[in-house]
Amino acid sequence: MRLSRYFLPVLKETPSEAQIVSHRYMLRAGMIKQQAAGIYSWLPLGFKVLRKIEDIVHEEQQRAGHIPLLMPTLQSADLWRESGRYDDYGEEMLRITDRHGRDMLYGPTNEEMVTDIFRSHVSSYKDLPLTLYHIQWKFRDEIRPRFGVMRGREFLMKDGYTFDLTKEDALHAYNRHLVSYLRAYERMGLQAIPMRADGGPIGGDYTHEFLVLAETGESEVFYDSDVTDLTFGDREIDYDDVAQCQGVLEEFTSRYARTDETHDEALFNEIPEERRRVARGIEVGQIFYFGTKYSDSMGATVQGPDGKPVPVEMGSHGIGVSRLLGAIIEASHDDKGIIWPEGVTPFHCGIVNLKQGDEAADGACEALYEQLTNAGLEPLYDDRKERAGGKFATMDLIGLPWRITVGPRGLKNGVVELTCRRTGESEELSPEAAVAKVVSIYAA
Amino acid sequence: MRLSRYFLPVLKETPSEAQIVSHRYMLRAGMIKQQAAGIYSWLPLGFKVLRKIEDIVHEEQQRAGHIPLLMPTLQSADLWRESGRYDDYGEEMLRITDRHGRDMLYGPTNEEMVTDIFRSHVSSYKDLPLTLYHIQWKFRDEIRPRFGVMRGREFLMKDGYTFDLTKEDALHAYNRHLVSYLRAYERMGLQAIPMRADGGPIGGDYTHEFLVLAETGESEVFYDSDVTDLTFGDREIDYDDVAQCQGVLEEFTSRYARTDETHDEALFNEIPEERRRVARGIEVGQIFYFGTKYSDSMGATVQGPDGKPVPVEMGSHGIGVSRLLGAIIEASHDDKGIIWPEGVTPFHCGIVNLKQGDEAADGACEALYEQLTNAGLEPLYDDRKERAGGKFATMDLIGLPWRITVGPRGLKNGVVELTCRRTGESEELSPEAAVAKVVSIYAA
Repeated sequence: MRLSRYFLPVLKETPSEAQIVSHRYMLRAGMIKQQAAGIYSWLPLGFKVLRKIEDIVHEEQQRAGHIPLLMPTLQSADLWRESGRYDDYGEEMLRITDRHGRDMLYGPTNEEMVTDIFRSHVSSYKDLPLTLYHIQWKFRDEIRPRFGVMRGREFLMKDGYTFDLTKEDALHAYNRHLVSYLRAYERMGLQAIPMRADGGPIGGDYTHEFLVLAETGESEVFYDSDVTDLTFGDREIDYDDVAQCQGVLEEFTSRYARTDETHDEALFNEIPEERRRVARGIEVGQIFYFGTKYSDSMGATVQGPDGKPVPVEMGSHGIGVSRLLGAIIEASHDDKGIIWPEGVTPFHCGIVNLKQGDEAADGACEALYEQLTNAGLEPLYDDRKERAGGKFATMDLIGLPWRITVGPRGLKNGVVELTCRRTGESEELSPEAAVAKVVSIYAA
Repeated sequence: MRLSRYFLPVLKETPSEAQIVSHRYMLRAGMIKQQAAGIYSWLPLGFKVLRKIEDIVHEEQQRAGHIPLLMPTLQSADLWRESGRYDDYGEEMLRITDRHGRDMLYGPTNEEMVTDIFRSHVSSYKDLPLTLYHIQWKFRDEIRPRFGVMRGREFLMKDGYTFDLTKEDALHAYNRHLVSYLRAYERMGLQAIPMRADGGPIGGDYTHEFLVLAETGESEVFYDSDVTDLTFGDREIDYDDVAQCQGVLEEFTSRYARTDETHDEALFNEIPEERRRVARGIEVGQIFYFGTKYSDSMGATVQGPDGKPVPVEMGSHGIGVSRLLGAIIEASHDDKGIIWPEGVTPFHCGIVNLKQGDEAADGACEALYEQLTNAGLEPLYDDRKERAGGKFATMDLIGLPWRITVGPRGLKNGVVELTCRRTGESEELSPEAAVAKVVSIYAA
């Protein structure tokens, strides 16, 4: 993309309404625009990152054998009356009446609807296990939306629902989700620590939240520092292998890691003192096995091997897709702007032309642009007639991980400059070597 | 995908509520499930086709230089009060009140919001031309939703908005859209004929609807049969070339082609009688240049070259993404089911194992599955223990363009059967030759 033809409305001033760094940078980098309290337009740069995160979530869910579909944003109130949640949900549910006076709502989550799909179409245990998920806009009418996309009212969530014959199978589905989430977060450049969560009124031990450590996190977290040494890495996983998935769960959840909701001071104090950590975290996902809560109330049964009806064992598993943009920025920025991890960066590499209009510089930039594009990468070429300082400031603000700077002086010596956004380190290279290095980084 | 692990809830019975063939087949093929009047879940097979159509639209819009973003589904009523449409829109607008008593609405279209984004961020003619588009769910509270996704209440639309300094530039943007739409529809296997549309209260000559001919179309259409000979094909197009885009417009719109809304009997009768056609059509898109209607009322001006403020020239251009699934099926089916064009098929090729459990048949199917997958295609392998007749009926119903049938008898002779869904023709080939042929069809 050539910046002269893009729509990147960068702001010079820091918007006064933004209290946290991710919100400030998303506004300043022209990624979002607020349209109403807690409701945002995703401007081109923000939309690109949103789609990259969505793509990673889709890929990792499908790798785990989970099946995508798409449920609508609006739901009939009648479904929620069946589960009893229409009255219980409170004011965060956006209730709507259509022209015929029918009660509708903007879905805050989809347990009822997916259970309805299941009971309409599945009748035998032979069709299990089954995991259906979607990535769809949700609405929760927060009384005080804030922190930009971190606590918006209209937000994008991946929510997946598991259907199994037995509790044992349902816990394998739970473990599959844990593994697929670890993989997804790591691909986004995030360390998200599974922490024991509060089961709420349903109770039970089988729920974990995934938290990204960040000073601006909404939750206080307590953990054994050993958990931050764990990485999933590029290990092979067979999602059908019950023991292997269980092993990953044990590896990642056996050490102490809890939010203030489930914190147990006595247990915490059993950790050697030098490994005890108290910090803040941002919740970016949750997995939850809840058994037959919805299948009982909504009549979702299958015929078991003995021919008798069995209420299906369920779980629901969520990733906060739009919120992740905020979380990634909270975890990865400096005082100049965002620092995108390679896995989610909106453009792979910036190209800065120090002297637009100079024949050699223009030609070299065009050649770099073409070579990077032909290698399957998406460069952002700042081809505007602006001074170099302004171009650097924009590139730093929008946070592309790599930048190639091209100027007449360097070209006389046959070199361009390749700069790493994270370290700030630069090296002089031939244009061909710069392209080769950027290509090799993304091939890794 | 292995069918034993997929969620494809095919119905044996024809649902009584479905009046037209696309609605019947989408329900029977397990593509959609109605959740409320005019509101559907997109089950896995339906969701796959929806995403393919979305991808084609994205690719062709970006090829034309148009920039994707994403505006939210809910909008503030205040924006629509500025343009005067909040009161004018009528009962099809779904009006919502949030917990603080603020008036909101579920967007039926986005002229106001995109104009708001434009006026907030663009102030100079130097930033023009600009086309912003998104693909987002819309809601129109139709009094009588029907025909499945063809006339739903919650529907997916691509809507793009053009911003230009002059009428001349705006008409080039209009032409770019016409070209990009022709390309997109052809990639979906559709012939969509641009027909002169009614400008409505705004008037003007610059609006065309794109209609797909189908017996079940909602509009009566009148055209010169020469228009159906036109194809865009694989010609090269430079979207910056004003004359070239104008040439395509003239080529595709100079012959008589109108809906009943703009039909002119006298003009129609000037066509030689043997070329006069009266038929029915389904509207799948519309392009519309409307000048300064919104920029005037909402104060969207840019500073012109002479330093004076100029209201920006606008147009809006839509493609009915979810509706296209219905239109494609209406245009491409037989009495056994859907016949997907290669460009939008949910899976590239079906594999039918005539004798699941037979070592040779199972092995050959697995090998085919692996080879097609390694070639970058997505096969659907019916690995269920069902009788052959049921497997064929399912494949015919869901309409994959190509099917490879594998049985012990053929394998003894070293052959499998490759069947074309559209013609019904089969040929016996070695498994390797069958894979090579399917791969070459999709490479074309």
